[in-house]
Amino acid sequence: MKKRRILVVGGLAAGPSAAAKAVRVNPSAEVTMFEASETVSYGICEAPYSIAGIISDESRLVIYTPERLREEKGFDVKILHHVEEVLPGESKLVVRDLRKQVLVEYEYDKLILTTGASPRRLHVDGEDGRNVFHLSSREDTRNIIRYIQSECPKNAVIIGGGYIGMEMCEALRTLGMEVTLVHRHRLPMAGLEQETRERIVEELEHHGVHFVTNASVEGFHPGTDGKVHHVITNRGTFDSDMVILSLGVEPNVTLAKSAKVRLGSTGAIATDERQLTNIDGVYAAGDCCEVKNEVTRKPMYLPLATVASRAAWVAGENAAGGRATFKGAIRAIAVKVFGIEVAQVGISSEEARAAGFDVLTESITGASKVRLMPGSQKVTIRMIIDSRTKRLLGANVFGGDGAVLRADTLGVAIQHKLTIDEIARFDMIYAPPFAPLWDPILVAANKAKSRF
Amino acid sequence: MKKRRILVVGGLAAGPSAAAKAVRVNPSAEVTMFEASETVSYGICEAPYSIAGIISDESRLVIYTPERLREEKGFDVKILHHVEEVLPGESKLVVRDLRKQVLVEYEYDKLILTTGASPRRLHVDGEDGRNVFHLSSREDTRNIIRYIQSECPKNAVIIGGGYIGMEMCEALRTLGMEVTLVHRHRLPMAGLEQETRERIVEELEHHGVHFVTNASVEGFHPGTDGKVHHVITNRGTFDSDMVILSLGVEPNVTLAKSAKVRLGSTGAIATDERQLTNIDGVYAAGDCCEVKNEVTRKPMYLPLATVASRAAWVAGENAAGGRATFKGAIRAIAVKVFGIEVAQVGISSEEARAAGFDVLTESITGASKVRLMPGSQKVTIRMIIDSRTKRLLGANVFGGDGAVLRADTLGVAIQHKLTIDEIARFDMIYAPPFAPLWDPILVAANKAKSRF
Repeated sequence: MKKRRILVVGGLAAGPSAAAKAVRVNPSAEVTMFEASETVSYGICEAPYSIAGIISDESRLVIYTPERLREEKGFDVKILHHVEEVLPGESKLVVRDLRKQVLVEYEYDKLILTTGASPRRLHVDGEDGRNVFHLSSREDTRNIIRYIQSECPKNAVIIGGGYIGMEMCEALRTLGMEVTLVHRHRLPMAGLEQETRERIVEELEHHGVHFVTNASVEGFHPGTDGKVHHVITNRGTFDSDMVILSLGVEPNVTLAKSAKVRLGSTGAIATDERQLTNIDGVYAAGDCCEVKNEVTRKPMYLPLATVASRAAWVAGENAAGGRATFKGAIRAIAVKVFGIEVAQVGISSEEARAAGFDVLTESITGASKVRLMPGSQKVTIRMIIDSRTKRLLGANVFGGDGAVLRADTLGVAIQHKLTIDEIARFDMIYAPPFAPLWDPILVAANKAKSRF
Repeated sequence: MKKRRILVVGGLAAGPSAAAKAVRVNPSAEVTMFEASETVSYGICEAPYSIAGIISDESRLVIYTPERLREEKGFDVKILHHVEEVLPGESKLVVRDLRKQVLVEYEYDKLILTTGASPRRLHVDGEDGRNVFHLSSREDTRNIIRYIQSECPKNAVIIGGGYIGMEMCEALRTLGMEVTLVHRHRLPMAGLEQETRERIVEELEHHGVHFVTNASVEGFHPGTDGKVHHVITNRGTFDSDMVILSLGVEPNVTLAKSAKVRLGSTGAIATDERQLTNIDGVYAAGDCCEVKNEVTRKPMYLPLATVASRAAWVAGENAAGGRATFKGAIRAIAVKVFGIEVAQVGISSEEARAAGFDVLTESITGASKVRLMPGSQKVTIRMIIDSRTKRLLGANVFGGDGAVLRADTLGVAIQHKLTIDEIARFDMIYAPPFAPLWDPILVAANKAKSRF
């Protein structure tokens, strides 16, 4: 019997997961993964902590080398190979070997696209200055670390107040820099509730971040040394020894489009529950794809490692001949903003209204553990509730210890369509060093119940 | 219209909750709570931390004084009043005023029994020595603190390796004492899984507790000073400057029995979902009651503050004329054993087998957060699974940071009868400072899935 040939395009996160799963499911399959850069399987989410020096030695962020993937996971890895074209009619890839600068064709039985995402650009002159950085690859991470070590920047301007922006504020403050965060809206972290976003601003400012609101970048001021020395905005000009662009990402779909792979309404690749695209034998997973929102049942673009890994397992299993499905995600995300934990699960009140829900929100502040115990901290929970069914649609949890893990508990409630009455009946642990008699989750659910 | 008279017997935890709820539901009701001691509304669960000096000033454990309950909660409190008899035929209580030493009768429309539980005794001579302590009341707590401060004991013998035993080991070690823990079984903390119990022994011994297994106390050796200087067991004799008896509790049901209130198979008061006993108009809640186990659907005796509070709310609401139900508890408990968090949710593998389940257990050790991050700790999860339905019946979670809060997430799964397939699909947060890409919960569920 002819061996099944599975080709995987892209090696950062979803690619290795999909390839490894394919081999586990079908050990006789011939699986090959192509990656245009030198690095596969990289912990980019840990990069801010490596830049801050909290994780020493950046090379530890490499989870698997190509050699280890070959030996331990049993598939072939071709780095510095750029896939230029998919020929679905012929079931072939056209691949450029970047070292030899030759084009080679590879035949496949099944193809998995894990082409990832790229950081959004500002499209402003000076954006390519040698002290202007994105943070979406190992190369970016190493460039930032190297620049900081060699040039000892004093002033950093971070443009974009999303997750990476938050983490980089903390990382660069930890290194002792003056940090200016330039954001186009009044509050950072779009998608979170207003109360949460206001708390984040307070925390940023408390830790010395200069937060510039409602600002749009009008230009950079490059010097003859190839560096941007000033960031010019409608809200003032800011000195910059270094600039971080953290404007979010967009899916890499050029290859998919050229192969007539269908994109969804979000602009990312659309797949079914098996991670199959509209093209027979072509699967996709990871940051190049959209995913079904389990609350609204509509597609969303959610470039997260958790979603990528789970979708990649499904793509890998199905490409290998198995039968797996990926039901979607509720959106479960968290970020550390200096001293506070901030988490979001499910949809925001704005999204809920847009999706046609009749929305009730309720917010309480409880204690992370018994108040008398040293280290007890405030935890705030805002619940977003469908007032017709009393179902929990989303929640923000922020504050001290355990905010994030409590969000996970609420995430389960959201995923399983539980009502606030059911949440109020949760049998939760009370133990003075860990949780108060009435966990903030119960306090929030009981308060919300009283509104009906 | 005549006001509804509601009497509540017992004022430690369930009593104040029930009385306060009754007033909230029916502000015109006349609610009176009787308590035989001087103290109501006391945080006995925090007592070990007050003894250890972690919570300074024991008086902070008094949550409400009688005066504050009257003013803020709107019900009458009679301390130093011992309820001697219930006359259900006449809807009357016979109450001894302990100060005046007179008997007074009180009529009720509705009665709520919250008589609590008492510490089990050894029934061994010397048990009433003046350096032998239980820990189930404010008086006990203050006696222990006072004794330690005045007599500076060097050697403590703790008898009984349950929750209070664990907490007192840590409290007394924190104070610098030599601690011997005498336990009648090979492993402490009956009801937890063997793996968990072995880990606890390791932790106890690592922190210098002398753990004596399979020991039964044969006698105390009292001195002429009224103190027990040696604890004599079948496994040796141990010096004791002080002795703590932590043998668990039994429900206070003398009053209930005298009123022909029916007890359940556990020996505690049986109620329906409304917390109504077999006697019309007589409710009960708290440590004097049994509770339905939501996993086995059978009654269990579970003297926990969380269960007491929830049952008390229901009793209070119904006594006041409302309609509330208490569906039961899964058992959700945790204890800190020196450096580790230990939690149990749902039933044990032994209970599951006894209840007729076809049991599969699976155990994994994961990371509390991304391993590269400083402070990442091991978290072990043992799942107890019904192999016919794949439903999660119980779990032990122990180890580092967040073990307890993760147990809460599994508790929700148990309460809502989720399967390991559903748990493996939980959309959980990944954020380097808080949780790894694959939370230990997902690792455990995926490993368990692979066994089918």
